[in-house]
Amino acid sequence: MSKVPLYLQLIEDLTKKVDNGQYQIHEKLPSERELCDVYDMSRITVRQALQELEREGYIYKLHGKGTFVAPKTYNQNLVKLYSFTEEMKAMDKRPTTKVISFQKIALDERLADKVNLAPMDEVFQIVRLRLADDEPLMYETSYVPKRTFPNLTEKDLVERPMYDVFMQDYQVGVTKAIERFSATSVRKEEAFQLGMIADQPAMLIKRFAYHNDELIEYTISVARGDKFDYTVELT
Amino acid sequence: MSKVPLYLQLIEDLTKKVDNGQYQIHEKLPSERELCDVYDMSRITVRQALQELEREGYIYKLHGKGTFVAPKTYNQNLVKLYSFTEEMKAMDKRPTTKVISFQKIALDERLADKVNLAPMDEVFQIVRLRLADDEPLMYETSYVPKRTFPNLTEKDLVERPMYDVFMQDYQVGVTKAIERFSATSVRKEEAFQLGMIADQPAMLIKRFAYHNDELIEYTISVARGDKFDYTVELT
Repeated sequence: MSKVPLYLQLIEDLTKKVDNGQYQIHEKLPSERELCDVYDMSRITVRQALQELEREGYIYKLHGKGTFVAPKTYNQNLVKLYSFTEEMKAMDKRPTTKVISFQKIALDERLADKVNLAPMDEVFQIVRLRLADDEPLMYETSYVPKRTFPNLTEKDLVERPMYDVFMQDYQVGVTKAIERFSATSVRKEEAFQLGMIADQPAMLIKRFAYHNDELIEYTISVARGDKFDYTVELT
Repeated sequence: MSKVPLYLQLIEDLTKKVDNGQYQIHEKLPSERELCDVYDMSRITVRQALQELEREGYIYKLHGKGTFVAPKTYNQNLVKLYSFTEEMKAMDKRPTTKVISFQKIALDERLADKVNLAPMDEVFQIVRLRLADDEPLMYETSYVPKRTFPNLTEKDLVERPMYDVFMQDYQVGVTKAIERFSATSVRKEEAFQLGMIADQPAMLIKRFAYHNDELIEYTISVARGDKFDYTVELT
């Protein structure tokens, strides 16, 4: 008869205490040494359990301060088109957006090639912070062709979701998007805006959004690694 | 008339030198200070360009050693079912697998719940390192029910891809898989196996693979963040 490994037993006990509310969100967990004593397990076993729990998104560590119970993460289903605003509303969160910078730039050849425009074409480069219930979640840099949205202003984007502006002011909707996901770590400026520590893990998402066959948006999002996961079904 | 920002001009020039082979893969780039001098740009501009290039996967940094040209990354299209072995072959890479551990364990309640089995059911827990052309790329921990694959041995998995063993020895094929992606950082043991430095970014992929409606595999993969990206099309 096989045995349940000790670290799995510990994980199970701790997650139960989180799930039944014995440990509250953001509450501090006992230290590694205390857990060793309480459960009569080795340091290695306790550490393995805590590492798993961290990866599962159950707990987070603050350097020098200890281990805490993490809030629930956002799961994004990668099938249909979505917008940050709609997703957050669907989860009963209040989405807000802070425009960090808004400028008109000319494209270099490489970026032009990426977004299917000509070099030196003008685009709006927009850096935004996306929040849910006032908690910063994503740091986004968007490139939007001036040709398609000639009168776009910073004010538009402060007041309304970008896709609403596209649709209401230009009758242009997103019909298809291609997203590329990779793992990265947050830079100093992003960490500052996201309320993270620099070099923590983050998801890097590049979105190419199209209206029919015309690219109308290229966005690079940095999403907090501890807040998001993305699901896809393969057949 | 808008201008192309300086850091984009520098990115363009450097990527061209990589693309036309003037800088070779794994070749060391000039230092930040040298780039400032050569291009007559500020340190801030040079640093911004290098950060972008690192994120785009063009370069990698080695602490205390400098900046180097990165090899191409693997792009995975998230639509149809794939296996590591088939993917690598399609890219003309030689896939190999190293079995790090193979043991029979009983499931705790939480893990059982996750994989739709009963607590105390037996599973094989298999830790494998996946390589392409001898370069380690993924660190995988799989749980496979003993009920479905009663005679699975370590030797099977050393000799053949897991899905080949499933099909050839048990006539069981994967018909559907659900994958969950999140960003994480590599742990010491994983970093050691993957030839990375601990705490570097990695993609965490949880795969639930089904034969019809029966779960036959739960795998947690840690994929080098600098080696993989994943594409999905949303409509």
